[in-house]
Amino acid sequence: MAKEKKQVEQITDMEVDFAKWYTDVCTKAELIDYTSTKGMFILRPYGYAIWENIQKELDARFKETGHVNVAMPMLIPESLLQKEKDHVEGFAPECAWVTHGGSEKLEERLCVRPTSETLFCDHWSHIVHSWRDLPLLYNQWCSVLRWEKTSRPFLRHREFLWQEGHTLHATAEEAIAETEQQLETYADLCENVLAMPVVRGQKTDKEKFAGAERTYTIECMMHDRKALQGGTSHYFGDGFAKAFDISYTDKENKLQAPHETSWGLSTRIIGGLIMTHGDNRGLVLPPRIAPTQAVVIPVAMHKEGVLAAAEGLYERLKTAGIRVKIDDSEQSMGWKAAEYEMKGVPLRVEIGPKDMEKEQCCICRRDSGEKVFVPLTELETEVVRLLEEVHKGLYERAAKNLADHTYPAFSLEEAKQIQEEKGGFIKTMWCGELQCELDMKEKAGMTSRCIPFVQEHLADTCPICGKPAKHMIYWGVAY
Amino acid sequence: MAKEKKQVEQITDMEVDFAKWYTDVCTKAELIDYTSTKGMFILRPYGYAIWENIQKELDARFKETGHVNVAMPMLIPESLLQKEKDHVEGFAPECAWVTHGGSEKLEERLCVRPTSETLFCDHWSHIVHSWRDLPLLYNQWCSVLRWEKTSRPFLRHREFLWQEGHTLHATAEEAIAETEQQLETYADLCENVLAMPVVRGQKTDKEKFAGAERTYTIECMMHDRKALQGGTSHYFGDGFAKAFDISYTDKENKLQAPHETSWGLSTRIIGGLIMTHGDNRGLVLPPRIAPTQAVVIPVAMHKEGVLAAAEGLYERLKTAGIRVKIDDSEQSMGWKAAEYEMKGVPLRVEIGPKDMEKEQCCICRRDSGEKVFVPLTELETEVVRLLEEVHKGLYERAAKNLADHTYPAFSLEEAKQIQEEKGGFIKTMWCGELQCELDMKEKAGMTSRCIPFVQEHLADTCPICGKPAKHMIYWGVAY
Repeated sequence: MAKEKKQVEQITDMEVDFAKWYTDVCTKAELIDYTSTKGMFILRPYGYAIWENIQKELDARFKETGHVNVAMPMLIPESLLQKEKDHVEGFAPECAWVTHGGSEKLEERLCVRPTSETLFCDHWSHIVHSWRDLPLLYNQWCSVLRWEKTSRPFLRHREFLWQEGHTLHATAEEAIAETEQQLETYADLCENVLAMPVVRGQKTDKEKFAGAERTYTIECMMHDRKALQGGTSHYFGDGFAKAFDISYTDKENKLQAPHETSWGLSTRIIGGLIMTHGDNRGLVLPPRIAPTQAVVIPVAMHKEGVLAAAEGLYERLKTAGIRVKIDDSEQSMGWKAAEYEMKGVPLRVEIGPKDMEKEQCCICRRDSGEKVFVPLTELETEVVRLLEEVHKGLYERAAKNLADHTYPAFSLEEAKQIQEEKGGFIKTMWCGELQCELDMKEKAGMTSRCIPFVQEHLADTCPICGKPAKHMIYWGVAY
Repeated sequence: MAKEKKQVEQITDMEVDFAKWYTDVCTKAELIDYTSTKGMFILRPYGYAIWENIQKELDARFKETGHVNVAMPMLIPESLLQKEKDHVEGFAPECAWVTHGGSEKLEERLCVRPTSETLFCDHWSHIVHSWRDLPLLYNQWCSVLRWEKTSRPFLRHREFLWQEGHTLHATAEEAIAETEQQLETYADLCENVLAMPVVRGQKTDKEKFAGAERTYTIECMMHDRKALQGGTSHYFGDGFAKAFDISYTDKENKLQAPHETSWGLSTRIIGGLIMTHGDNRGLVLPPRIAPTQAVVIPVAMHKEGVLAAAEGLYERLKTAGIRVKIDDSEQSMGWKAAEYEMKGVPLRVEIGPKDMEKEQCCICRRDSGEKVFVPLTELETEVVRLLEEVHKGLYERAAKNLADHTYPAFSLEEAKQIQEEKGGFIKTMWCGELQCELDMKEKAGMTSRCIPFVQEHLADTCPICGKPAKHMIYWGVAY
C-alpha cells in the first residue's frame, strides 16, 4: 500500500480545525475509506485490526463471566419490531427497510436490525420455560443500521460494527447486577486497554435507551473537551418479557416474568481513541490495543550487517510476544518516521552502523517523541517497560484533561459561560425534572451526560429551577 | 438451558428419513433455531461455538499467509452491482433490496450484499496506483443474503455467515497461485480439523461462480452419499479490474490491469460436518472443532468424595489445555449420557466410588461407544491420545465412505443406474461440452461436481456424446 508515498502527507492542525484534523487522521492513517454506499464506510485493514484487538479483549472478558456468543438474523419483520411500544418509537424513524426479495415484493417489509432486543426476546419466548433455563447470558458480534442524516468516520455511520449483549434473569436484582457488571467491563476496557479515563453514571430518563428502565453509561472527554459516550448498559425490567410473552415457572411452580438487560459497545470507541490520544502528527495508539506495538527500522540499510542486525531485533521482539514489524523498504528515513508517527505506532526501534558499534539501538516514543539509547542486551525488557510507560503516560494525560476541564456550576448562566469559554464537563445539582434538561439544552446547548455514580453535594437546590436537588449531574456537548 | 429435560429426546433414524434425522440433530443438539424472519435461522450458542472454532482455525491460516481482515458495507447500490455483467446476472435474481431509509424512499435502491466483489473492486479503484500497492490480500468475516425460495438448517439460509477473501495481484500467475493456495487451505481445514475427506477439483464453466474465469472446489460426500460443496476459490482474470477501472503502473511505468481472486467458506460446512459424522444418537463432533472435547460426569455424585474427585479430573484436564466441562447437575446418569451423545462430545469421563477405589476413571468414546478404564495417573495423556484416535477414526470412516461409493461409469445409462441403486460420486470421461452436462442432469439427475485435479484415464471418449474425451469428471446429486 505504498503508492505515491515519497512525500510525507500533511494533516490539518487540530488547533486550526479539529473536525478536519480528525477526518485527516482517519483517512491518512488508513483506518477508513469512504464508499459508494452513502453514509457507510470501509474499515481498512489497519482500522479493522484495532477493532479485532478490541473484540479479543472484550470477548475474553465476556466469556470469563459466562457469556456465550450467538448469531441472530439481520432482518426483523415489522410486526416483531412493533411488539414493544417504546422501543419501536425510538428506532422506527431510523430503520432501513427491505421491501423486495429477488423480483418479488414482500408481504411484510423487513427492517435491517438497528439493534436486536426483539429477536432475542422472540427466541427466548420459545426456549425459556423453567427457572433452570435462567440466566441466559448471550452476546452477538455484528453490524447494525441506523439511517442517520449525516455521517462521520467512526462517530456516525449508517452501518456500524458493535457487540450487543442480551441477558435474561430470574430476578430484577440479578439483572441489575449484570447491567452494572457489564458497564464495569466497558470501563475496564477503556481505562486499562485504551488508556481512556471514564465517568461512570446513569442516563436521565430523557437520554436512556428506547424501552429501558435504566441506562448506565461511561462518558469520555475528547481533546476538544466534548463528550463521547463510550458504551452503555441497559436494564429493561420485565417490559420486554411481557411484550414477548416470555415466562418461566419458579421453584414454587409459579409463573414469573424474567428480567432483561442489554449492553453495547461499537466502533465509535475508535473515534474516541483517536480524539483522546491523537496529535498533530497523526494517530497515537495505546500499546495494549496497537496492531503494531513497535516497528524496527534499519538506518543506512545498505551498510554491511545493518539489515541483519535489524532483523535480529525484529526476531527477538517477536519471540518476546511483542506485536512488531520491520520496515526494510527503500523509503527514506524521514518518510518512515512520518509514516509510523501517522499510524501511531507506540515505539520506533532504530539501528544503524554507529549503534551496532556501541551495541545499542535507539528507541523513539510516539507519545512524547523522547529518544532513548538501549543496550542490545536489554532490548526486550526495555521495550516491555517503555510500552507500559506509554500506556501510563497516555492515561495520565487524558485523566488530567478530564480533571482540568470538569467544572462545578451554580447557575445555568455560569454553566453556559464555562462551556462557551472553556468547554468540558459541567457538574451541577439537578431536581430530576425533564424541563430543566430541556432548558439546559435550549439555553446552554448542553445535554445531560450522566448522573455519576460518585456523587458530590454541591448545593441543596437545582440551579435551573431552584427546586430541591435530587442528584449531581454532568452536562456537556457530545459527539 | 435444562428445561423439561427429564426424559431423553428421541430423534428419527437416518435410515428411516435422512432429511428428518438431519433436522432433528440440528434442533435437538441445540445448534440452530427457526425465527420469525422466514428463511433465516439463529445460530444458538452451541452451533455458534462450532463456527467460532472454524473461524479461529481459518483466520490463523489466512494471517499466516499474509491476509488481513477488513469490513465493507453490507449494502451495495444497484448501479455498482451492475458494473460487471456476468456477476450481476448471476446474483440479481436472489438479491434482497432496501428501498426505504426511515420514512423516505431512496433515490437508488440498495442490495443487501449477496457477495462483495463489487465493493472490494470499488475500493481498490481508489487505492491502487502502482505495482508497489500489490498484492492486496483481504478477507472479511460477515453474513450475506441470498433470497432462496426454500430453506434448510445450515445448508440453505437466506442469510448465512461466511468469510469472503478478495485479493488483487499484478499477474495472472500470482492470482492463480493464490486461488490454488486458498483452496488448499480449505482442504486442510476439512481434512485436518473437521475430519472430512475432500475431492479437489475445478468446476465446469456451467457450475463456476458468476463472473469468474475459473472456480476451484472441494467436494465432500455425506452419509447419504450426496455431495456437498465445502468451499470454493475463484480466479477472475482481469475482468472485474477492467469493469471497475482498476489499474496500476508496472516497474516499466506502463499501465496494467491487475488480476483478482475471491474465495469463500460458510456455515454450510457445519451441515456437512453433521451429515459426515453424525449417527442415530445425534451429533458426532471431531475433537479438533468440538466446543467441548470432554465432559466429566460424577457417578453416584452424593457419595463421599465423588464430586471432589470429578472436580479434580476437570481441573487437571483444563490445565492440560483440553476444552472440558463438568456436569454436576441433578439429572440422571442416563439423561447425561444421552445429552452428551446428542451434543456429540467426543469423550465422556466418568468417575464413581468404585473407580476411586481402583484409582481409575472410565472414558467413553462418542464415535465408537467404546469404554476404557484409565488409571488416574495417565488421565491427561490418555485423553489426548483418545482425542487423536477419535479424529483419525472419524476421518478414516468418512474416507472409506467416499472411496466405497465412488464408481467409474462408461455410459450415461450406467451412471444413472449406479446413482439410483447405490448413490455416490460417479466418475466418467467428458468431452467438455455443456450439452453433455445438461443431458446428464436431465436423464440421470446429476450435476457435475468437479474435474478433479487427480485425473484418471478411464476411456478415450465421452460416454455421453461419444466425442473425444478431454477430462475425467465427477458427477453426483448435491446439497
